Amino acid sequence: MPYRALQYAQEHASEYLADLRALLQIPSVSTQPEHEADILAAAQWLVAELKRIGLEEVKLLEAGGNPVVYGEWLGAGESAPTILIYGHYDVQPVGALAAWSYPPFGAEEADGKIYARGASDNKAQLMTHVKAVESYLGAHGQLPLNIKMLFDGEEEIGSPYLNALAIKYKHLLDADLLFISDGAMFAPNYPSIDYGLRGFLAVELLFESVARNLHSGSYGGSVHNPAQALAAFLGLLHDDKGRVALPGFYDDVTPLTAGERALLADVPYSEEQWLVETGAQGVWGDGDYSLLERMVARPTCEINGLTSGYQGLGISTIIPAWARAKLSFRLVPDQDPQKVLKQLEAYLAEKVEDTIVTTVRYQGGERAAVTPWRSSAVRVAMTVLTEVWGQKPVVSRGGGSLPVVSILQRELGLPFILVPMGLDDNRHGPNEHYHLVNWEKGLAAAIHFYEAFAQA
Amino acid sequence: MPYRALQYAQEHASEYLADLRALLQIPSVSTQPEHEADILAAAQWLVAELKRIGLEEVKLLEAGGNPVVYGEWLGAGESAPTILIYGHYDVQPVGALAAWSYPPFGAEEADGKIYARGASDNKAQLMTHVKAVESYLGAHGQLPLNIKMLFDGEEEIGSPYLNALAIKYKHLLDADLLFISDGAMFAPNYPSIDYGLRGFLAVELLFESVARNLHSGSYGGSVHNPAQALAAFLGLLHDDKGRVALPGFYDDVTPLTAGERALLADVPYSEEQWLVETGAQGVWGDGDYSLLERMVARPTCEINGLTSGYQGLGISTIIPAWARAKLSFRLVPDQDPQKVLKQLEAYLAEKVEDTIVTTVRYQGGERAAVTPWRSSAVRVAMTVLTEVWGQKPVVSRGGGSLPVVSILQRELGLPFILVPMGLDDNRHGPNEHYHLVNWEKGLAAAIHFYEAFAQA
Repeated sequence: MPYRALQYAQEHASEYLADLRALLQIPSVSTQPEHEADILAAAQWLVAELKRIGLEEVKLLEAGGNPVVYGEWLGAGESAPTILIYGHYDVQPVGALAAWSYPPFGAEEADGKIYARGASDNKAQLMTHVKAVESYLGAHGQLPLNIKMLFDGEEEIGSPYLNALAIKYKHLLDADLLFISDGAMFAPNYPSIDYGLRGFLAVELLFESVARNLHSGSYGGSVHNPAQALAAFLGLLHDDKGRVALPGFYDDVTPLTAGERALLADVPYSEEQWLVETGAQGVWGDGDYSLLERMVARPTCEINGLTSGYQGLGISTIIPAWARAKLSFRLVPDQDPQKVLKQLEAYLAEKVEDTIVTTVRYQGGERAAVTPWRSSAVRVAMTVLTEVWGQKPVVSRGGGSLPVVSILQRELGLPFILVPMGLDDNRHGPNEHYHLVNWEKGLAAAIHFYEAFAQA
Repeated sequence: MPYRALQYAQEHASEYLADLRALLQIPSVSTQPEHEADILAAAQWLVAELKRIGLEEVKLLEAGGNPVVYGEWLGAGESAPTILIYGHYDVQPVGALAAWSYPPFGAEEADGKIYARGASDNKAQLMTHVKAVESYLGAHGQLPLNIKMLFDGEEEIGSPYLNALAIKYKHLLDADLLFISDGAMFAPNYPSIDYGLRGFLAVELLFESVARNLHSGSYGGSVHNPAQALAAFLGLLHDDKGRVALPGFYDDVTPLTAGERALLADVPYSEEQWLVETGAQGVWGDGDYSLLERMVARPTCEINGLTSGYQGLGISTIIPAWARAKLSFRLVPDQDPQKVLKQLEAYLAEKVEDTIVTTVRYQGGERAAVTPWRSSAVRVAMTVLTEVWGQKPVVSRGGGSLPVVSILQRELGLPFILVPMGLDDNRHGPNEHYHLVNWEKGLAAAIHFYEAFAQA
């Protein structure tokens, strides 16, 4: 069956690309209120598109926030598996226009790429599945399995209402597998499969000491400097081996199995490559774990930002009134962000003198999500990707966090698989793009996967 | 003799105030290049003023930077003492205009005050001495001692060329006493005398780790976070008793004598007053020293500012490429800022791992300056201030730093005395002002002091 669907895709390649370009031309930036109408336009464009290709029950789901697009095709019947495809139609802000060589919403083609904000993250990857479904329905009038599609409008702002939506539409979203194409393949022409993601906890720490900035000549030596107190506290968050020193932090960490460590050891990722990617002086971290394990399977604590006092040129000899750190933790199974938050609060109470008023502002959190890596979904994806790309894929966890995965795993008990179809592609940066070869091979991979998974 | 000079001052009170207002109306902001012409206008206004009142050798001294105004009257002869009066005609920037209730260069009178940027810091205090000299020369055609006046044009930017100037004009500036009226009296109607100032060392610490901000999901756990490394290092700069933990920092600190500790203990400064002034939760610092001793006679280390990574609203889960701290030390005799800088560099080399590239940017430094507090200048000033204000003055050190004092002490061996004539007066803030009562009593105090010091 895939042969005819693939042929259909090839025959309609220029229309498919035109449809992708139409979506890319809608500036659906979710982080900027002035793009509210564009968000709605993108959602409505997708509703029309899903109806046109033959999905049913196409509608906008509402649980607060930007609308979520839903559509389904359940004609394969109850004996066939159902996969839920998640993507997001919202995009990052453009940033400085001067840094772009192409108009961010022009969707222009050049050098085998199509340039647009949101091209790789996530519109082309989302449309890959839309076009895979269209190819089946166009060629055969049916799919080898049941499909549900869920396209988020707030992924770039952390999907704050997705948990409520998953609860509200629990039965609608039920499936056998959550399939997500987002993020980057391991390397060009080198596909990858992620079977896990880290969770996270994000907080803002505010240390306050005095009513206003004071002159350090007048009061230095008598006032507890909040920047100094904050630095001292942050210095206590790691030990000298690069481990997180927050008491209790590792209590709930499920140890990596020997099998999984062997799997990760097989990933051809070298320190040399890491050095090129990061521009760092050398690797750092917990020496009991390999470089890749530290990046994807171990929990972390990171300072994301520091703000205090005078930040301009030259000198201003003040004692700042306050100091602030943005802090986030990457979590692994079975750490609970709420428990880590309590550990942090207890550590602050223990370590910070009462000359400082501390405030912890919760900024979001989500548990890690890991799905069995010896699943039929992973096996099928390995076969399909090897065939399409001529390269056996890397199987690994991802180090980042995607709330939808944890939410649907928790609320619906869904196993999941992450198969990125894009590359780095300057996602979140200027000149974001998508390689046309990834567009073509991604479509072939999706078409193959539906068939192979239905038969597995 | 002072009686007639005082009478002359009273008879010319309105002209004196008009002259002060004329100087206040020149926006001589030294930190903003667009005020270059205003700086020159203020310097030339002072040249004309000093010539008009009868000083000799009136000229602009040049050693780089904004011009320094000089004038002298040496008619008292070699047997009489010579005092060098230092002030500065440059002012701070205005800041947000909306915060001002009066035009910053309008010099308007209201509520017994005259409002202008630079009113208290330092134009009215500088003009107090100009008018004291004018009163003597107007009433008597002579002064009881020799006077030299030196008016800086770059005090608010740290007087970067003053050291070169002191060397270039060493013989011209020679005197028996450096007299400075700047800063604030102890309290309203409560005069004070400072016989010492702290020195300082200011540096910028830059910690760099990676080529650009990295995604903490991708690289967290493998990259040495420079904000974390900086916080950890800054946390090592104090021990848990509030003492500076930089190795060797206290080696050259001259212990306070029992006599000086008794003198400082006599200053009626309470923890209650400190709490009102600072708005702090409670006092902090080295418990082996009194609150006032910590503020004026002990060295410190302060973080003046922190900058790293994401500082906006919400979350941005990055590993920052770099982190920066502005750090300054207040120093006491006989600490050497260059030696402290070397101690800091050695401590960085010892404590920071080589996954981080550290840079120390020197931003200025000056030794502390202390003059004997059992001097005739202090004794005379005590008598005069007690008489003028009806209140025995506080005798103390000041906790701040004034480069001119250290420079002239080092280059010319000058003893000095600091007699502030103003109050807090919102110096450096909006609605800076000067109390007319301070203007009148300051003038009387200066007139009395010249006579009494000549006779001491």
